[in-house]
Amino acid sequence: MFEPRFSGYEARVRDSFDRQPAMHSMGITISKVEPGSVELVMPYNPDFIQQHGFLHGGVIVAALDSTAGFSALTLMDEEAGVLSVEVKTSFLAPGKGDHFRFVGEVIKPGRNLVFVETRGYAISDGQEKLMATLNGTMMAVRGRDDVKD
Amino acid sequence: MFEPRFSGYEARVRDSFDRQPAMHSMGITISKVEPGSVELVMPYNPDFIQQHGFLHGGVIVAALDSTAGFSALTLMDEEAGVLSVEVKTSFLAPGKGDHFRFVGEVIKPGRNLVFVETRGYAISDGQEKLMATLNGTMMAVRGRDDVKD
Amino acid sequence: MFEPRFSGYEARVRDSFDRQPAMHSMGITISKVEPGSVELVMPYNPDFIQQHGFLHGGVIVAALDSTAGFSALTLMDEEAGVLSVEVKTSFLAPGKGDHFRFVGEVIKPGRNLVFVETRGYAISDGQEKLMATLNGTMMAVRGRDDVKD
Amino acid sequence: MFEPRFSGYEARVRDSFDRQPAMHSMGITISKVEPGSVELVMPYNPDFIQQHGFLHGGVIVAALDSTAGFSALTLMDEEAGVLSVEVKTSFLAPGKGDHFRFVGEVIKPGRNLVFVETRGYAISDGQEKLMATLNGTMMAVRGRDDVKD
Repeated sequence: MFEPRFSGYEARVRDSFDRQPAMHSMGITISKVEPGSVELVMPYNPDFIQQHGFLHGGVIVAALDSTAGFSALTLMDEEAGVLSVEVKTSFLAPGKGDHFRFVGEVIKPGRNLVFVETRGYAISDGQEKLMATLNGTMMAVRGRDDVKD
Repeated sequence: MFEPRFSGYEARVRDSFDRQPAMHSMGITISKVEPGSVELVMPYNPDFIQQHGFLHGGVIVAALDSTAGFSALTLMDEEAGVLSVEVKTSFLAPGKGDHFRFVGEVIKPGRNLVFVETRGYAISDGQEKLMATLNGTMMAVRGRDDVKD
Repeated sequence: MFEPRFSGYEARVRDSFDRQPAMHSMGITISKVEPGSVELVMPYNPDFIQQHGFLHGGVIVAALDSTAGFSALTLMDEEAGVLSVEVKTSFLAPGKGDHFRFVGEVIKPGRNLVFVETRGYAISDGQEKLMATLNGTMMAVRGRDDVKD
Repeated sequence: MFEPRFSGYEARVRDSFDRQPAMHSMGITISKVEPGSVELVMPYNPDFIQQHGFLHGGVIVAALDSTAGFSALTLMDEEAGVLSVEVKTSFLAPGKGDHFRFVGEVIKPGRNLVFVETRGYAISDGQEKLMATLNGTMMAVRGRDDVKD
């Protein structure tokens, strides 16, 4: 278990998420915030599928990238804003489901770089299937007016 | 230069892209189709930014993932549909611009696996800046009714 | 738990590992073989450190790449040989230890593509530390005389 | 073209490379050092092949990871040492050749993080073939006695 550096971490994550238009536009909401871990959920949305009718791989990555960023932010100090340095995704199964769940876990917190492991699940009739993994490096940015969380 | 396996590759790519709601919803269009290469463009869209006002990293990946998939599809035979196996992204600079350009180049075409290198650029007042790179592995899928391009 | 497609999977993996000079040259041995999982171990070896005295990052990747390939091979049919398609590594902590342990777990077995998650640990005085993660895509190759396992 | 922050960059890179036992043990040498770019070469070496007789994928990554690290180091200030944060590799063709060449190019230099793109080539009878790509994030480390270049 991780010890947050900022006691107001949960409110900050939820507030920062609320100020993120991209997630809203895709119908993604935040369902859990804990030190080192965030969970996002998304109902099936015909506006964000690809040409075969599955959830678009890029939308899966968008959700997982946000999951990674906010999981990292739970462990950052009050002065820090979060940016993605890089993300690595494997697509294990098509995005077929009535809704989707995205879970992140910090695997190495640092003052400047935070490594996060995330997984995306497709859920059909209550049955959950691992759809994708994303591992990413998140960076704490300080003293920049344009990157505040 | 690559020799397409299917002479109707351009019409197929454009048609398949048109059947992809996710790209439409993000305001992304296809601007160039050549054997082994596809270019997508996107105007600044306030619905797809993140909490700091930049184009959301996940949207950048979504666009680059599509760029990779369609670049690969230009070199696939008529029977094949395309799926992403995995993508690897580095975020070099924030997505600040009045519009964005995404370019893919196949670096190794195979009958089953196609490797693609893509780059995303942010353009401000005609000035172009490299924003992100994505390298991905795309797979040709045959004989599956749910994956047709 | 996974069901192997070839009952002789363990002997094949151990035999194939024994025919791999690179692992021998680095002093890496195989310590466990189970369906979907392989473990390798390596003692500290001054010939394979980098300029700061830590285990070279590339050697960590070499060990993890082998771990991924052989973990995948445990689930492949008798006709298949294994090749790495791509690997993605995060370096979480320097390779400081008296010995090292590398563990792989298949997270999605397929007939042609197998996805594997691996972790590398540095052990000092019995204390284990997560040093690196590698996620990779492994491919089953059939009918090629030059790729036999 | 890049402007080095430290005029003695070439001597430092060559000296630091010489203090790296892993590269020596694999028979890899440094053949070119320029601001933002380093080239390594390796003759065919039966001690570092895998079970099918090709250059081991992990050795390819080891060489490319070093290429990336030293390419980044050419642009770092005198106080900095270099560590790999993460590397992402695609294996395009088997490592079949009489010798091998590894080239890196910095694509985004930063004070703390440097992004590098590298390529590995297999050469047979003077014919060069692209074997692998590796994109990585390298970090400048300052004020740590155990990471000096």
